[in-house]
Amino acid sequence: MKIDPWSSTTYQDYARLRDEFGIQEFSEDLWKHLPHPHRLLRRGVVFGHRGFELILNAIQKKRPWAILTGLMPSGRMHLGHKMVIDEVLYYQSLGADIFIAVADIEAFATRGFTLEEAKELAVNEYIANYIALGLDPKQCHLYFQSRHQDVKDLAFLLGKKVNWSQMVATYGFEGTTNMAHIFSPLVQTGDILHVQLEKYGGIRPTLVPVGVDQDPHIRLSRDIAQAHRLYNVTVTKDNKIGVFVKVDTQVKELLDAAEKTLKKLQFTDLKRITDYKAIYINTAKEADIPGIDEALACIEPSFHGYGFLQPSSTYHRFITGLTGEKMSSSKPESAIFLTDTPQEAKKKIMNAKTGGAATLDEQKKSGGKPDDCMVYELFLYHLIEDDDELQSIYESCKKGELMCGACKKHAAEEMEKFLRDLQQKRTKALNQIQEYLH
Amino acid sequence: MKIDPWSSTTYQDYARLRDEFGIQEFSEDLWKHLPHPHRLLRRGVVFGHRGFELILNAIQKKRPWAILTGLMPSGRMHLGHKMVIDEVLYYQSLGADIFIAVADIEAFATRGFTLEEAKELAVNEYIANYIALGLDPKQCHLYFQSRHQDVKDLAFLLGKKVNWSQMVATYGFEGTTNMAHIFSPLVQTGDILHVQLEKYGGIRPTLVPVGVDQDPHIRLSRDIAQAHRLYNVTVTKDNKIGVFVKVDTQVKELLDAAEKTLKKLQFTDLKRITDYKAIYINTAKEADIPGIDEALACIEPSFHGYGFLQPSSTYHRFITGLTGEKMSSSKPESAIFLTDTPQEAKKKIMNAKTGGAATLDEQKKSGGKPDDCMVYELFLYHLIEDDDELQSIYESCKKGELMCGACKKHAAEEMEKFLRDLQQKRTKALNQIQEYLH
Repeated sequence: MKIDPWSSTTYQDYARLRDEFGIQEFSEDLWKHLPHPHRLLRRGVVFGHRGFELILNAIQKKRPWAILTGLMPSGRMHLGHKMVIDEVLYYQSLGADIFIAVADIEAFATRGFTLEEAKELAVNEYIANYIALGLDPKQCHLYFQSRHQDVKDLAFLLGKKVNWSQMVATYGFEGTTNMAHIFSPLVQTGDILHVQLEKYGGIRPTLVPVGVDQDPHIRLSRDIAQAHRLYNVTVTKDNKIGVFVKVDTQVKELLDAAEKTLKKLQFTDLKRITDYKAIYINTAKEADIPGIDEALACIEPSFHGYGFLQPSSTYHRFITGLTGEKMSSSKPESAIFLTDTPQEAKKKIMNAKTGGAATLDEQKKSGGKPDDCMVYELFLYHLIEDDDELQSIYESCKKGELMCGACKKHAAEEMEKFLRDLQQKRTKALNQIQEYLH
Repeated sequence: MKIDPWSSTTYQDYARLRDEFGIQEFSEDLWKHLPHPHRLLRRGVVFGHRGFELILNAIQKKRPWAILTGLMPSGRMHLGHKMVIDEVLYYQSLGADIFIAVADIEAFATRGFTLEEAKELAVNEYIANYIALGLDPKQCHLYFQSRHQDVKDLAFLLGKKVNWSQMVATYGFEGTTNMAHIFSPLVQTGDILHVQLEKYGGIRPTLVPVGVDQDPHIRLSRDIAQAHRLYNVTVTKDNKIGVFVKVDTQVKELLDAAEKTLKKLQFTDLKRITDYKAIYINTAKEADIPGIDEALACIEPSFHGYGFLQPSSTYHRFITGLTGEKMSSSKPESAIFLTDTPQEAKKKIMNAKTGGAATLDEQKKSGGKPDDCMVYELFLYHLIEDDDELQSIYESCKKGELMCGACKKHAAEEMEKFLRDLQQKRTKALNQIQEYLH
């Protein structure tokens, strides 16, 4: 069975985006290896990734890994925001160590909120909903950027290895851009990489699940992590696997340590050329690189390096707004907010843009277009867990058996159940929330 | 009596610099109001200032004021570095609250030192000498930028009010400039302004004594302080004194508070025009502006403002190196280091460039040129406290009565006394130093 949630245009858009930015496809070959894959993964809503193999490997080998997700407190939380949390909760069930950054510095720098306003909104709107959705705040690291000294310190220190031209190329900053805004991506890099500091669990694969608009932050963090590495493991021109020391101090000691590590990993036939700052591993294959790289990263802190592994990322599609445009807090009719009443949600669903035909007769004859239907998207992303049930709706619509009125009513009912349940849990969460904050 | 330490060329250079950047002259009219003015002030070595009137006013009215000075740990400390500390010690005797920032983040960002190397150098080279020169570390706030969270937080937050174009205009940054470097001036702004946060003593005049090369940091800090103010006090086009609210929220409340403050300051005949966000003070004169401004600044924190007063600055000339070029750590023969032995110092003095003539006979006939003499500079800046004694050397040289050999010997003897005494005090300081650090 293959559910294709993509309208052909949108699919091409995302595929083009993916290819343009060098994002890898998040294909079935990848998610089928995950335990009970989440609906957003198996339905192609998560469509791309960078370096997810590291995460998969950690899950399969039951080794430690972490997730970092950020929330920008800048309006009411809607279904679009819920998706990342759905993913995070799924990964938490697979053993990920969860870090949640409240991007209050970014809200200050780019949206004009005071830190107090950002905190208020983050706690009462976002964190309350996260907990209501199932996040156990005792089992995760929740922090505010503005109060996390290690994150801010990293932001300062890591900036050494990125220059202004790179920032312009990545973010399109201009002369009128303010300096707090210019610096805020480095705070995000601090967020993403700090989880690999020893006091937060040490060097390990880290996943950052995001919408594709956040890819610049991912690329910056990956570039900066790599730029700070002391070792580089790569395929050489003559097709060998080589370990190279990237710095000019303690070269001998670094090569000694690498040699020891490689032997521990059972690699033999090592050829060391100190003048090239290199060790060639005649018995290694390309597939061995990630493992070698990770093992070498872990010895870098003893040479004053960070040893940060490049963070991995996944990219999800954006849920379309009910009006057919972007789902956005600034257009309340486009979005279902997690604090909407069932009545409000129902009204929006009833007014939603669907894939129905102009007349009932025509729809019965030529069928509906679920790929272009906002109500179907609600089912696909949020409301229906069972793939067969979803498939059956998809096909009934296509065949002209299922009409929009009935479908909207179904969606409104499911949404009511969801919102009522969430409302109860949120009230409880709000009562308990203060104790989780530090 | 008027000692003119300037060679005519140098004088013109500094005067041109001063005028070009809009720096005010630090004239006798200013320093004569200070208690027992320091030799560097009364001899014109401190040649310019911005906003020193605020400091003078605080000294005269015995109101609190602060000094912030920074040290960049990047080499051995020499006589050129000593000048700012001489000034700081003088101002401490007048009641200034002293803050000393170790610019380890800047050393990291711009000079390639690790934070550990910077700390080592700061403690053993600079701070040890500061204490040996007379600084009582218990009577000052000594801190490392990298460990001062409030300074770093201000750096982030204050960046909101300065854009990239301003940074380029001020510092000439380019595409290849790294982001840690780009951000380091904002850390300096954090250094300079944090002393006015309530927990560090609150809003008050702050002096930053610097060499003129540091003026960009001063301008940036002054601009940023002003940009964050909620009130502006100024002379209007029709020559009235007006108080204007610069923000759009709580305008009524801000005007109410300003009105109350102005009445407390005994100003009457206030004309408030809420639509213009203004209060005109018919009974105020231009000279009243600083007092009004300071009083209004102090109420800004209750409206979530900082109320930072623009920091004041003084600018000193650079001491010339013994070789006639710049005194620099990287040219040991040009500099007398505070850790030089008397023998080393003597050798450098004996080889120094002087204002003597080609032959003894010629010098006896037409006299020497103390304005072009590195040895005379040593007397003027460092070795001779008594103005009459200095004057007499100056005149004897001019008249051809004093020859370079004798003068150098005199300087070497004075330097030996100074260095021996300092060496003893430094040894003692190094033994005690650890307890002062936090």
